[in-house]
Amino acid sequence: MKYYSEKMNRLVTQLSMLPGIGQKTAEKLAYHIVKLPKERSVALVDAIRDASENVSYCKICFATSDEDTCPVCRSQNRNHRVIMVVENDDNMAQMERSGVYDGVYHVLQGAIDVMKGIGPNDIRLKELMIRLRDDVDEIILATNSSVEGEATATYISHLVKTLGIKVTQLASGIPYGADIQMVDGPTLARAFRNRGEV
Amino acid sequence: MKYYSEKMNRLVTQLSMLPGIGQKTAEKLAYHIVKLPKERSVALVDAIRDASENVSYCKICFATSDEDTCPVCRSQNRNHRVIMVVENDDNMAQMERSGVYDGVYHVLQGAIDVMKGIGPNDIRLKELMIRLRDDVDEIILATNSSVEGEATATYISHLVKTLGIKVTQLASGIPYGADIQMVDGPTLARAFRNRGEV
Repeated sequence: MKYYSEKMNRLVTQLSMLPGIGQKTAEKLAYHIVKLPKERSVALVDAIRDASENVSYCKICFATSDEDTCPVCRSQNRNHRVIMVVENDDNMAQMERSGVYDGVYHVLQGAIDVMKGIGPNDIRLKELMIRLRDDVDEIILATNSSVEGEATATYISHLVKTLGIKVTQLASGIPYGADIQMVDGPTLARAFRNRGEV
Repeated sequence: MKYYSEKMNRLVTQLSMLPGIGQKTAEKLAYHIVKLPKERSVALVDAIRDASENVSYCKICFATSDEDTCPVCRSQNRNHRVIMVVENDDNMAQMERSGVYDGVYHVLQGAIDVMKGIGPNDIRLKELMIRLRDDVDEIILATNSSVEGEATATYISHLVKTLGIKVTQLASGIPYGADIQMVDGPTLARAFRNRGEV
């Protein structure tokens, strides 16, 4: 039988639709959330609404951002002549957490996946090529170590090399088949330092 | 450096304040939430607000509920003469998921914790004693197997036994399916002491 009320049930349902949140975790979170002091639950609701309503992409690197450009692209402390190509925001976040990289990013927001009918035009690849009209010293490929990630990297490296721009790829050392966001910092840092020209 | 925008940062901060949600999970959730279709993020926000604004406790068992009484206390299919005493909503939910129990509950919303200055008057114990004025066949103690949980169970069992009501406690022993070499000493000792004839 249902042992909690209708509104609790709605909240549990909504929470359990989030990635990595099962039924049990959703219940635990729901019990916690409904008991938050008024100002805390209002802050949570406002944060979700504000971030959701304003979300868009950085017009330079296409990281998810609610501002015109993301903090990395705006920063004077980053090397804007080195661009690391990643599949998604989570992977960019993981690289940032490793603290080893001071260039900028290009977030493809996907990977080429022939089986799913996702081609080069379905990810932010055209936008990357447009960026290459400016002075760029190096493109670092940091797509996932999966069939789709590797295919995407290969495709991009062919394109970019025709422009005479140096292309490197994160060193192997990342376990085969692993998603970059699951890789620990030291491994990621080593893969970054050992990157080789392709 | 901060690699995501101010509003994303606020959302990540809010999410990471929830139990069991670390920085990385909070970021992952935030990236997911801001990309939800409008109607999905509105549904999430509404669910949180509605459940939070209306939350209170079941006036019978003190389970968290946004209705006057909880579904279990309202049910005609439950045995209202057997009351299981639990510390919190999560523990009640876990027992319900097991599907083995058809009585009702009393949710203490805490446990006696002398070190933290939480005494019998700081949990829903008085409310339990009031319920015992009605016909009750059995009180089942299902507090956690911790110092506080055990102290609370002992305290309640003394109180309830003086009323001549049967008091039982969930059996303590080896978890179902466990390899004995993986079971810790205290658990094994208790399983030995509580051994039953077969």
